[in-house]
Amino acid sequence: MVLVLSNGLQETEIKALVSRFEDEGFRTNLSYGAEAAILGLIGDTSRLNEDTLRALPCIENVIRVSAPYKLASRTFHPENTIVDVNGVRVGDSRHFTVMAGPCSVESEEQIISVAKDVKRAGAQVLRGGAFKPRTSPYSFQGMGQAGLELLKAARKATGLPVITELMSSNQLELFEDIDIIQIGARNMQNFDLLKEAGGFGKPILLKRGLSSTIKELLMSVEYLMAAGNANVIICERGIRTFDSYTRNCLDLSAVPYLQKETHLPVVVDPSHACGIAWMVPRLAKAAAAAGADGILVEVHNNPACALCDGEQSLTPAVFAGLMRDLAAYAALEGRTLGERCLH
Amino acid sequence: MVLVLSNGLQETEIKALVSRFEDEGFRTNLSYGAEAAILGLIGDTSRLNEDTLRALPCIENVIRVSAPYKLASRTFHPENTIVDVNGVRVGDSRHFTVMAGPCSVESEEQIISVAKDVKRAGAQVLRGGAFKPRTSPYSFQGMGQAGLELLKAARKATGLPVITELMSSNQLELFEDIDIIQIGARNMQNFDLLKEAGGFGKPILLKRGLSSTIKELLMSVEYLMAAGNANVIICERGIRTFDSYTRNCLDLSAVPYLQKETHLPVVVDPSHACGIAWMVPRLAKAAAAAGADGILVEVHNNPACALCDGEQSLTPAVFAGLMRDLAAYAALEGRTLGERCLH
Amino acid sequence: MVLVLSNGLQETEIKALVSRFEDEGFRTNLSYGAEAAILGLIGDTSRLNEDTLRALPCIENVIRVSAPYKLASRTFHPENTIVDVNGVRVGDSRHFTVMAGPCSVESEEQIISVAKDVKRAGAQVLRGGAFKPRTSPYSFQGMGQAGLELLKAARKATGLPVITELMSSNQLELFEDIDIIQIGARNMQNFDLLKEAGGFGKPILLKRGLSSTIKELLMSVEYLMAAGNANVIICERGIRTFDSYTRNCLDLSAVPYLQKETHLPVVVDPSHACGIAWMVPRLAKAAAAAGADGILVEVHNNPACALCDGEQSLTPAVFAGLMRDLAAYAALEGRTLGERCLH
Amino acid sequence: MVLVLSNGLQETEIKALVSRFEDEGFRTNLSYGAEAAILGLIGDTSRLNEDTLRALPCIENVIRVSAPYKLASRTFHPENTIVDVNGVRVGDSRHFTVMAGPCSVESEEQIISVAKDVKRAGAQVLRGGAFKPRTSPYSFQGMGQAGLELLKAARKATGLPVITELMSSNQLELFEDIDIIQIGARNMQNFDLLKEAGGFGKPILLKRGLSSTIKELLMSVEYLMAAGNANVIICERGIRTFDSYTRNCLDLSAVPYLQKETHLPVVVDPSHACGIAWMVPRLAKAAAAAGADGILVEVHNNPACALCDGEQSLTPAVFAGLMRDLAAYAALEGRTLGERCLH
Repeated sequence: MVLVLSNGLQETEIKALVSRFEDEGFRTNLSYGAEAAILGLIGDTSRLNEDTLRALPCIENVIRVSAPYKLASRTFHPENTIVDVNGVRVGDSRHFTVMAGPCSVESEEQIISVAKDVKRAGAQVLRGGAFKPRTSPYSFQGMGQAGLELLKAARKATGLPVITELMSSNQLELFEDIDIIQIGARNMQNFDLLKEAGGFGKPILLKRGLSSTIKELLMSVEYLMAAGNANVIICERGIRTFDSYTRNCLDLSAVPYLQKETHLPVVVDPSHACGIAWMVPRLAKAAAAAGADGILVEVHNNPACALCDGEQSLTPAVFAGLMRDLAAYAALEGRTLGERCLH
Repeated sequence: MVLVLSNGLQETEIKALVSRFEDEGFRTNLSYGAEAAILGLIGDTSRLNEDTLRALPCIENVIRVSAPYKLASRTFHPENTIVDVNGVRVGDSRHFTVMAGPCSVESEEQIISVAKDVKRAGAQVLRGGAFKPRTSPYSFQGMGQAGLELLKAARKATGLPVITELMSSNQLELFEDIDIIQIGARNMQNFDLLKEAGGFGKPILLKRGLSSTIKELLMSVEYLMAAGNANVIICERGIRTFDSYTRNCLDLSAVPYLQKETHLPVVVDPSHACGIAWMVPRLAKAAAAAGADGILVEVHNNPACALCDGEQSLTPAVFAGLMRDLAAYAALEGRTLGERCLH
Repeated sequence: MVLVLSNGLQETEIKALVSRFEDEGFRTNLSYGAEAAILGLIGDTSRLNEDTLRALPCIENVIRVSAPYKLASRTFHPENTIVDVNGVRVGDSRHFTVMAGPCSVESEEQIISVAKDVKRAGAQVLRGGAFKPRTSPYSFQGMGQAGLELLKAARKATGLPVITELMSSNQLELFEDIDIIQIGARNMQNFDLLKEAGGFGKPILLKRGLSSTIKELLMSVEYLMAAGNANVIICERGIRTFDSYTRNCLDLSAVPYLQKETHLPVVVDPSHACGIAWMVPRLAKAAAAAGADGILVEVHNNPACALCDGEQSLTPAVFAGLMRDLAAYAALEGRTLGERCLH
Repeated sequence: MVLVLSNGLQETEIKALVSRFEDEGFRTNLSYGAEAAILGLIGDTSRLNEDTLRALPCIENVIRVSAPYKLASRTFHPENTIVDVNGVRVGDSRHFTVMAGPCSVESEEQIISVAKDVKRAGAQVLRGGAFKPRTSPYSFQGMGQAGLELLKAARKATGLPVITELMSSNQLELFEDIDIIQIGARNMQNFDLLKEAGGFGKPILLKRGLSSTIKELLMSVEYLMAAGNANVIICERGIRTFDSYTRNCLDLSAVPYLQKETHLPVVVDPSHACGIAWMVPRLAKAAAAAGADGILVEVHNNPACALCDGEQSLTPAVFAGLMRDLAAYAALEGRTLGERCLH
């Protein structure tokens, strides 16, 4: 950690500051520039709070040299983490994982029908929301527990593992038999939820918040891992910018950057990113080209009647065409898609 | 609600669409422009979902004419709502309410000392965090339940009502004896928390999310009100932009705009907005000039040693000076500050 | 155009407003909703100013139904425009155009060496800056006119047409013999420059501004076209967001969206978007997968010594590898790259 | 300047790097942390380019300790600069300067009428646009040279000095007799314009770009000053964010921050910031409370018929009321307004 000291400090003040850090066990390195003195701290600075240090009148600025996330960092875990979900190996660089299904579970007929469609097209995981975060209290809030049961029925009918969103730790016990727990963008910094979900033991897919930096995203991953969970999948799903021609702005640079910074699988949700069905296939292919480990995509048997997010859902027929295209794109990156891998 | 229809529709398709809405009980009004046909819907459109409509291939765009928040809207409740907290009347246009105290409760000595200081200077509510949302799992997470007890001790010592942050509905029962429940920026769209806190019956201060639009903020207020709570205070605390010279960007336009749109009290948190202690008094005065109903401000007896957010805390002496300045500013808006109002 | 009228208007006020628009030659359509009256205007509304209308106390909101850009819109020009640059057909859906070269022209040896390298690897256009927009007045501002001469020398040596940035209309006469004029992101709304460059007759590549909406970008294209220029290439080069882990955020959704809205070629500049050399190939491939008509990419023979933007430049060897990969990606979209097309 | 070196460097590589900087005349200071080696450079680092250094494979990160703007920095010029415009002392901490007038000059009658109105209310400078930057090529582009003549006629009629916008250096000679040259937000990084306007010798008001950081704003000020101009007024006029309930987001924190970083006058344009007339007085008062040296505000005799930006203009009557309020606010900051100061 590098501290830029304030202008005009007395020599005695500087010495007192140096002593303070040495007493706390750090080695120090002081140098004088033309305009500022600089104090380097050597030791475990992860326990120092940058804001607290900046509050000291003698300190002008604080620069952290090493990443504040340890468990998530590739520095200390160079190999890829592969999250194995009933044989689906998310994060395996030889595979491209497609998770597909409707925004919301609406009925047994609907979810089983979509599940069969997406399986036939090659998807490996079924997605579907039972608890739905909605901006308005007057919008459909999801089927809740009944929706979870229908997801399990669809799993039984197709063999596809299921992913669905958890919105409150009060619901955690209902997720005992869910294969992947999704934590949504709006809850990315719901730290109590992260702690409890992290301690629950199931694989977790964490979505990037609408305006979260990559560093904040990795700190939220760190919450999950610090609670004992090594099976975290990170999902880029679009960020909020000044423009609104798409619902959010898909930030594909996040894919290679996250893969460099962390050992965890990185997937992309093009449906929520743009919110426009006809654009989803283009962005899904771009995600594969950017090196993503997979995608999370909305498919609905009748998008125009969907209870939520219909505008961004693909029909099963369009999805099947996309899967054919994606196979070719994934192949260019040395990845296969569409089959369960049983190693 | 106004629907812009897609180009190139057949007359029969348009008629089918019109019939569909009339069957659902809406009156309709169809007109043909040079480049698009436009369909007006008259009736209770709050139950229609804009995204679902946009997903229909025959609809190009959807424009909502009336606000989707009903309980929060000033249209249906023209008079100011005054939230009465043990005699402190937040939202009364004759008063300017100052809530002050440390970011975190650290010890009995600390919180009682600060409480006495801020009371002496004229603050009407004591703030202090017991449960703290922190970006890093390795940072101090607050004293928890013990911190709540210390807040109550400080209330007993000074008579000041207390406000503190709720992070999870699991902690709700601990807040029975807290005067104002704060819901933080990161939880503004934690909808489960909003529902449960809204049903709890205590006054609530809701902070705007880091990148929440004013409309989203009002929809989250609507969650609280739809759960039965009429005593909601809205807090502007800075938003995230492309620049980082301050921690966030205080959006003071939100104050007059919210006061026009809603009947609820609107306060400002200059401390979290800028994150820089020397700038807080300037922004606090600007908030008063912008017409805010009050401020929430961090005061610490020893900012340089604070366990969190020290950089943005005022010393009691600086705070006392600010209160003198604020009295003059508030007076220009016809408001008094610093005394409990007992009508 | 749809006008939402203010609440509480008298019938006579509404009639006066309707008459005013009918006197100006518009047909009108008035309807009454539950909460607002709505007035549709039919006719050439492109001459109406939305802000002026909103300033009328009787008008609450104004909604423009048709796009304000006419020449750029695909509605009135359904076929792709192909910009032919000495036989290089930018925007031809059977080709993927690669423009490559250094950020700045530094010397004859450098530019000819890079030009030969990128030609050998298959690039079709040579890029290189002679006039450089730099944030600091103390940074290298480019070689100016001498740089333009060196670009022409490199063109003579390789046959590659050249693209370079114009920063001021005072320099326009120097660009007589340049093949494509680039207008940079910081000048996207330098309207005087747009007018003069648009009237000059050369093909123009217009970069999206750092925080320009797609609509603003298309309006700036409209400036060029209204000045008589039909040969405009649009370039997405990254936008500014709240995060800074990359220099800018590449907004790939802009590619399919622009191609739907306009008939002009759309290319991507991954180098300026991310500002990080190792990430450029990933984003270049993603751009091809998103359907772009080409890329603009920085290549430098010695990036570590580059006078500007070295951090984001590829070495010729890395560029040659990227071109091999891109050929496979472009082929999946039915495009070839790397050869001059002479139809 | 502090360089964080890459992990895993050989001792010989580090030594070579140190030698390189010492050969260039810097003193160096090398220290080894737990995770990175850090190299401090002491000397005139303003000639080093951060991006070029980052491109070196041996350098991980570069941290600039001192500000890259020298002429604008308060460090080297502690006293306030007062820009004297025909006796109006902008930046004098005893005065608050109000510049008022219409968005566009429309006719002699209009501009003289408004000039008299704003003078009567206490404004000290007349504003009015002759050359207008408009998003659409089909919108009114201003009266041009004829508008400049009308401004001078209004000056003659009232004695008020005038400020108006320069959009191109080609028009510079027409501005010989203009009192303050305004450079607009969209041209803040039109570096050629900055150089030429900076060398012209007239006082300049520079508006912050829509998405310019404070640092970039100060670097553009530095362009003007490096070209020889010491009389620069900086104007905060709202920035672009994710929300659009106001046209832009007024960033009032910029006022105290700029006043700390620079010695130049800082004024605020509340009209363009919010774009909503009824909100302008609130924000003008907040600007005074934030410590601004003045405001730039739109006043129009008939806002509903204004040729541009009518929505944000005040009527002369509302403006006169605002001036009475502002006098009280300015007095709290020890400032007077409304009279020409002749020291």
